[in-house]
Amino acid sequence: MQTDVNQILREGVERTDEALERLLPPVTQAPASIHGAMRHSVFAGGKRLRPVLAMEAARTMRTAHGGAGLPEGIEDLGAAIEMLHTYSLIHDDLPALDNDDLRRGKPTCHVAFGEAIAILAGDALQTQAYVTLAKLKCAAERAVKIVGQIAEATGTVEGMIGGQVLDLEGEHTRPTAESVAAIHRAKTGALIRVSIVAGGVYAGADAEDTRRLTEFGTKAGLAFQIVDDVLDMTQDSEHLGKTAGKDVASDKATWPAVFGIEQSKKDAARLIAEAFAALEAYGGAAEGLKAVARYLVERTH
Amino acid sequence: MQTDVNQILREGVERTDEALERLLPPVTQAPASIHGAMRHSVFAGGKRLRPVLAMEAARTMRTAHGGAGLPEGIEDLGAAIEMLHTYSLIHDDLPALDNDDLRRGKPTCHVAFGEAIAILAGDALQTQAYVTLAKLKCAAERAVKIVGQIAEATGTVEGMIGGQVLDLEGEHTRPTAESVAAIHRAKTGALIRVSIVAGGVYAGADAEDTRRLTEFGTKAGLAFQIVDDVLDMTQDSEHLGKTAGKDVASDKATWPAVFGIEQSKKDAARLIAEAFAALEAYGGAAEGLKAVARYLVERTH
Repeated sequence: MQTDVNQILREGVERTDEALERLLPPVTQAPASIHGAMRHSVFAGGKRLRPVLAMEAARTMRTAHGGAGLPEGIEDLGAAIEMLHTYSLIHDDLPALDNDDLRRGKPTCHVAFGEAIAILAGDALQTQAYVTLAKLKCAAERAVKIVGQIAEATGTVEGMIGGQVLDLEGEHTRPTAESVAAIHRAKTGALIRVSIVAGGVYAGADAEDTRRLTEFGTKAGLAFQIVDDVLDMTQDSEHLGKTAGKDVASDKATWPAVFGIEQSKKDAARLIAEAFAALEAYGGAAEGLKAVARYLVERTH
Repeated sequence: MQTDVNQILREGVERTDEALERLLPPVTQAPASIHGAMRHSVFAGGKRLRPVLAMEAARTMRTAHGGAGLPEGIEDLGAAIEMLHTYSLIHDDLPALDNDDLRRGKPTCHVAFGEAIAILAGDALQTQAYVTLAKLKCAAERAVKIVGQIAEATGTVEGMIGGQVLDLEGEHTRPTAESVAAIHRAKTGALIRVSIVAGGVYAGADAEDTRRLTEFGTKAGLAFQIVDDVLDMTQDSEHLGKTAGKDVASDKATWPAVFGIEQSKKDAARLIAEAFAALEAYGGAAEGLKAVARYLVERTH
């Protein structure tokens, strides 16, 4: 079977967007302003990479355990993860944090809706993620496990919020190999890793599967962020859909700032090779998951 | 058996504070700043009324169904609810929202730790609530149900965030009976109601129990907020531990602003009587829950 990554990505976007459309309150629902703000940021053209990773991890588990295809309702898990990702972007862009006006080529949430509504829209996307997770079409034991894993991965201790704090506090001080690795592992790495692990748990991953998916997700997540850092330094704003070169301007802790661009590219390639090795036991069952990871490090925006 | 409400409240505070101490990352845990900020607001002297209501609802269910006492681990549910309550206060106090410097007699989170950390500390308290709920010591089916009920009650559609939006948008326009009822039902009422319902579900409430607890919680929650509004108009800041008279100064939608102080007091008393009627089937098993509700409307701060 030929693995067509473009088809995987296209289907992932379609299924995730359909789920988000269904799971987010409509703009006709009162109070309208906040639903408009939530949808503005959620439907700003995200690539839905985390939901796609969750889907492909689930497919790998199903195929490896003698089934095939995607488990029913997996797109709702992806949609919940995308809500959490979007909430973190909305709050990160606020004037008190990164003060960014442009995101995916559109005005950021607070620019379009004002700061108060942007703060509450971020809050509400986090809340709606748990509304969604509580209704997942899997056994209650799996749903509770997924809620706990996702909450831990987005929290303060080596999770997403912890990474945002480290990033804030590290601004305008010289990044080190240790600080940049810790920030990346927490700020973006943890959510990518848990997307893969939760997708696996949804589809019945056991302890050994979870260990493999965790190793794969940790390495692929770091590779993804290194590539993101390199793109920020080498591409223009129009191509990126966000303000380019901003990391350098604000002395953000980035991989190329510490290791240089060439070494960063090599590190990303090495990490992906190591990530693939963690999935060796699954053979061809992991083809889709590996294809998406390969795409993550070979993309140009 | 004589019901001693002061003992119930004292024990509720102790058990909740012990749980919060255990469930929140210590300030020695990196990144330290955000853990300090979370604890600053969580341990600012809250009365833990929502956790106490959850505990007493659980006790009512246990006693009514032939058991006695509190179910093991109920304080963790209360702690999670208190984290959610505190997150909403931190964000509500931000300059872009209510811009309040004083809360429970202490500097608000953004005054003490800066706006960026206050935004992230609020986010993190919401996250930590779900970390906590995912580990509840009850059957997975009950835990998933509680996660869903709590997330709905704190969301945008007739939940806590929705109430904050209505409140913001209604400022500086004349409140009506409809607008003030809708704001109260959502902004504070929904979390109080779900504290009671979730406490019941934790202890095994069935559909009929849940209906009764919902009715009780809806009415007691509105009565609580009416009393809060009256106290804001009639007490000084020192007694309240927050800036008094602020609701009037900013034309906030309050019950006495629409109905007057005397009518408001009568409405609160009537609502509590109706709330008690909803628990009639439980007889003496609901004594503790009723005692706490009575305290809520008779308090002076």
